[in-house]
Amino acid sequence: MNLNYPMLLTNSYNPLSRLIYELTKLPGIGEKTATRLAYFVLKQDLEDINGLVSALLNAKQKISFCSTCFTFTDVNPCQICSSSKREQTVICVVEKPADVHSIESSQTYNGLYHVLHGVLSPLDGIGPEELKIKEFLNRLREGQSVVKEVILATNPSVEGEATALYMARLLRPLGLKITQLAYGLPVGGLIEYVDKQTLGKAVLNRMEIN
Amino acid sequence: MNLNYPMLLTNSYNPLSRLIYELTKLPGIGEKTATRLAYFVLKQDLEDINGLVSALLNAKQKISFCSTCFTFTDVNPCQICSSSKREQTVICVVEKPADVHSIESSQTYNGLYHVLHGVLSPLDGIGPEELKIKEFLNRLREGQSVVKEVILATNPSVEGEATALYMARLLRPLGLKITQLAYGLPVGGLIEYVDKQTLGKAVLNRMEIN
Repeated sequence: MNLNYPMLLTNSYNPLSRLIYELTKLPGIGEKTATRLAYFVLKQDLEDINGLVSALLNAKQKISFCSTCFTFTDVNPCQICSSSKREQTVICVVEKPADVHSIESSQTYNGLYHVLHGVLSPLDGIGPEELKIKEFLNRLREGQSVVKEVILATNPSVEGEATALYMARLLRPLGLKITQLAYGLPVGGLIEYVDKQTLGKAVLNRMEIN
Repeated sequence: MNLNYPMLLTNSYNPLSRLIYELTKLPGIGEKTATRLAYFVLKQDLEDINGLVSALLNAKQKISFCSTCFTFTDVNPCQICSSSKREQTVICVVEKPADVHSIESSQTYNGLYHVLHGVLSPLDGIGPEELKIKEFLNRLREGQSVVKEVILATNPSVEGEATALYMARLLRPLGLKITQLAYGLPVGGLIEYVDKQTLGKAVLNRMEIN
């Protein structure tokens, strides 16, 4: 990143340039956005900034991984794992905690989750041992396990698909129903603009209208 | 803002949803970006987050307004006002401290600044008294003032132009050169996509090629 600071900011110990620098470390925040955010922060009341700061520190201090499903949680086991209202027979396997958040937002799923914390990526040295796969198998093999279906909801990327395939092979001997998320047209999307692979999947997986 | 929290986040005292909520208060950060940032923060080392937190607090504590030009600064008067390398005969009047940053980035200006902290906006109850106009006139009237030119660099918006006009009228009796930033084509822009008002200005203000 080329942080070409103007004269005002030549001193790198300058609190403003340090704040801009720290903000550029956040994902999707370039120098321009960081500068805008920094000036916004300076304009705000100290109280507002204290609110943000305490939320940051509080989140870091109180949130850790659920010992069952490995999502982020401030209570252990997490609210989903400990809820009696969730279906105990389905587990949705996702790459990262944010995916749990996304699927929950869709309000179409009422089962449990398991977070792998990554995908298989041999080039980056990430094999099955680096993911929470062993923990998942242990979960399924527990005496009281009532799981009947596993949804492999990894991303539709090369690594995500490879990870799903690997896990499907591992799970096959357990006699469970193994599913993956449907491919197809995005809601509100135009056929004209959908990439040909997605459109191909939408054609192949076409559904009967009842 | 409709923060439709999924089940995971129903408890508003949940540290994660509180962090997301605090992040959505930042400009240009919607719920989706805030969620992405929050999950990023949770993944980071505590050390990294402490760096951000201390930069936020440090900036708020150490930075205040320059008593001369009213930009944000950690030393008073600011580095620009106190620099002997800056031309003392030109003052560029801007709406807000971030505009000082932008003009400094262009590396085309070596004079002084004056930050108005807003523009005239009668509908919002912002009159000349709410801006740093009196302070600017005092600066010009000081015994040792050597100012020969004032650049009125307010934004090319209705309020910005009105503010520049108002100030031009105020400054006329002082016998100074009063200028404004040039209007015209953005560098790299296509004539085809430039709005007609800008294009009109570019035609009217056309420059001879030497």
